[in-house]
Amino acid sequence: MASRVLIQLDPDPQPSTFDAIVAIDSGVDTLLRHGSVTPEASVPLVHGAMFTRGGGELASTAIFVGGSDVAAAEAVFRKVRETFFGPVRVGVMLDPSGANTTAAAAVVTAARHAVLAESHAVVLGATGPVGRRVAGLLAGRAGSLTVCSRSLERAEALAGEIAARRSAAVQAVSLGGSLAESLAEAAVVISAGAAGVTLLDAAGVKGCRKARVLIDLNAVPPVGIEGILPSDKARVLEGIREDLPPVAYGPLGVGGTKMKIHRAAIDELFVSTEAALDAEEILAIAWRLEGDSTDRG
Amino acid sequence: MASRVLIQLDPDPQPSTFDAIVAIDSGVDTLLRHGSVTPEASVPLVHGAMFTRGGGELASTAIFVGGSDVAAAEAVFRKVRETFFGPVRVGVMLDPSGANTTAAAAVVTAARHAVLAESHAVVLGATGPVGRRVAGLLAGRAGSLTVCSRSLERAEALAGEIAARRSAAVQAVSLGGSLAESLAEAAVVISAGAAGVTLLDAAGVKGCRKARVLIDLNAVPPVGIEGILPSDKARVLEGIREDLPPVAYGPLGVGGTKMKIHRAAIDELFVSTEAALDAEEILAIAWRLEGDSTDRG
Amino acid sequence: MASRVLIQLDPDPQPSTFDAIVAIDSGVDTLLRHGSVTPEASVPLVHGAMFTRGGGELASTAIFVGGSDVAAAEAVFRKVRETFFGPVRVGVMLDPSGANTTAAAAVVTAARHAVLAESHAVVLGATGPVGRRVAGLLAGRAGSLTVCSRSLERAEALAGEIAARRSAAVQAVSLGGSLAESLAEAAVVISAGAAGVTLLDAAGVKGCRKARVLIDLNAVPPVGIEGILPSDKARVLEGIREDLPPVAYGPLGVGGTKMKIHRAAIDELFVSTEAALDAEEILAIAWRLEGDSTDRG
Repeated sequence: MASRVLIQLDPDPQPSTFDAIVAIDSGVDTLLRHGSVTPEASVPLVHGAMFTRGGGELASTAIFVGGSDVAAAEAVFRKVRETFFGPVRVGVMLDPSGANTTAAAAVVTAARHAVLAESHAVVLGATGPVGRRVAGLLAGRAGSLTVCSRSLERAEALAGEIAARRSAAVQAVSLGGSLAESLAEAAVVISAGAAGVTLLDAAGVKGCRKARVLIDLNAVPPVGIEGILPSDKARVLEGIREDLPPVAYGPLGVGGTKMKIHRAAIDELFVSTEAALDAEEILAIAWRLEGDSTDRG
Repeated sequence: MASRVLIQLDPDPQPSTFDAIVAIDSGVDTLLRHGSVTPEASVPLVHGAMFTRGGGELASTAIFVGGSDVAAAEAVFRKVRETFFGPVRVGVMLDPSGANTTAAAAVVTAARHAVLAESHAVVLGATGPVGRRVAGLLAGRAGSLTVCSRSLERAEALAGEIAARRSAAVQAVSLGGSLAESLAEAAVVISAGAAGVTLLDAAGVKGCRKARVLIDLNAVPPVGIEGILPSDKARVLEGIREDLPPVAYGPLGVGGTKMKIHRAAIDELFVSTEAALDAEEILAIAWRLEGDSTDRG
Repeated sequence: MASRVLIQLDPDPQPSTFDAIVAIDSGVDTLLRHGSVTPEASVPLVHGAMFTRGGGELASTAIFVGGSDVAAAEAVFRKVRETFFGPVRVGVMLDPSGANTTAAAAVVTAARHAVLAESHAVVLGATGPVGRRVAGLLAGRAGSLTVCSRSLERAEALAGEIAARRSAAVQAVSLGGSLAESLAEAAVVISAGAAGVTLLDAAGVKGCRKARVLIDLNAVPPVGIEGILPSDKARVLEGIREDLPPVAYGPLGVGGTKMKIHRAAIDELFVSTEAALDAEEILAIAWRLEGDSTDRG
């Protein structure tokens, strides 16, 4: 059995130490780290993975595409997959800014408190890198879905894109606008907005009269949903409804689940050379970690 | 016993993952990888190898100079060796683009099918990085040698250089020219031309009436010798002579031997701080792997 | 127990192989190496250390700031420490150009031959990166201290800075000037000047009539004190005083002690997340290695 080699492709000048340490803690033996990686520069690096180990040992090499620039990482991920041919390929995972693992963690966390298929879900900050993935994962899994952005135009573009890809109706609203009506019906509210922007104030939270779970994924204070603390982890939110109060999660409260998913996904890369882990595939791993044999959505 | 540390010096901006994975699979414990390495930049990196471990532990550090730019790597290799002094040195190996290990693999593969000292050998694409090394290794080992290039001038310059260095007569021809006459006498034909250029067409192959083995090292289709497949490995070539048909090797057919040589060479770096592995030293390792106690050439 | 991860932050374009190999030999399992590191660029790299491992496992990650540019490394070291907050921090060590470990090695070596508190000490080349640290460590530990630079102005600025920080009187002299008088009284003379500059000629050495130990830290010939050889290690210097001749150390003679200190300091990083090792903390480790339970100074 060959040792586990993970090639870390990062568009940032300095490859992420976060991604590296999680990889080591997931059982990777050797990390080959690369910064300033462009799609073109990734080709010979992928060839090195394809042409060094034969037969069963090929599965002991894998590729992780990460860093802080989501669009740049997505372009590298596409190029990596185009470079493979036939069975000459290795496992590859996309998780820039932890967007995929964070989105998967948010969805399975929500599913602990609400039956998704029977729930209306609202995603705030839905057009950012994490929000897009949360919305994409919820579309078709939640009973109904509203995506909200500060720009109605961007929200509508996203709703159209997701609706086409997932064959599911998606409503688009802007902050203000008809958001309050959506929130009044929502069992699941997930905020994934930009750092330092409060998307839902205390009055808005009070209006979430049917909420079962509110999740704020913004790791940099102030949080996006007023009243949620970064460390909240299933904390009961008083003052919304007394019979069945919702619970709140902050970024650190979701963090443990996210890290477990991240590590399990790295591990999965070495199971099969066919593994190509983007949002959907990483959510499947997350469901498995929740002890579900089937997708709850 | 100190752990095995290999310093990878690569002139390319992104250091090769190919070289890295082969090193790991050769038993290296820690890789210190450097890209964009110039001769000047290599000096402090070499000092770090020289001045950190004393006595017997010095042999647990070694240097690999690789990458895709052969001329740049050769300049770094020279600088590394100049930086050592007295016994304060570590093992160092040169193998940009796999040129040395590929050339050695081609020569020992040819020797499985022809007694080199009794053979006329022709090297096509002889003035490229791999071809130069194949020709240099065959000079004085093969009974006689013809080097061929698209440019007669370059072929003659190479022949003169090798003849002086190896004290062996080397004939230079250009494509077309008197190549056909050389091929008609050749027991060994090795093609190492640039990617995508066919150096010998089907009619030319038919003219190799005394050939015992034809080897094509070009890894990017089309191969340089028409009719040879990348995966050919001692495949009998019909239609040339029926009594004693020659065999053909493509780049993948030689690849297994090349990889064994590469790994054994890395291993050799940690045996003695005196190891300085260029083409000749790597061929010596290749002969040993063939089970020969003496150089067959 | 998580594996030991050391993040190597180096302002040089190519991160030091010296620092890397010493780290490996100190028991680090995985090195995450970064070159061209600025204070700003270090922030996300430090976040990766802070946010990947929780609880007791946080202590298995640490940071080393090194390279050849002492001022640049000091700026990175400051930024790293500012980036930590509360208990979310990891061990960090500063040792660019080996300045801290070399200075600590010089001080404990001197203390083997002279009772520091009863000794007058002279530091030559005191305003360079190593010299500043030697002087800072001796201030308050030696009975009295003279710092010497080619520029009296720089020597006086340094003396004022150290005197304020360490609450100890420090005398400043320039080469020539009243240096001879200081040397005539000195039990300890340490030279840490720039490469290739002789700071004390043979006549000057003869004037060190009360010297017990002379140490030259300049690794590049010519040494800074005429007559001392790089490999000198407690070599008796004849011709100064016959009753009680002083001993001499060259850079290689101090090197073994320096390497032990360097390795022990790396090891210390993984004991507590509170470790922040600059000159004083590294000297404390050096005293411990000398078998002293208390600071001899």
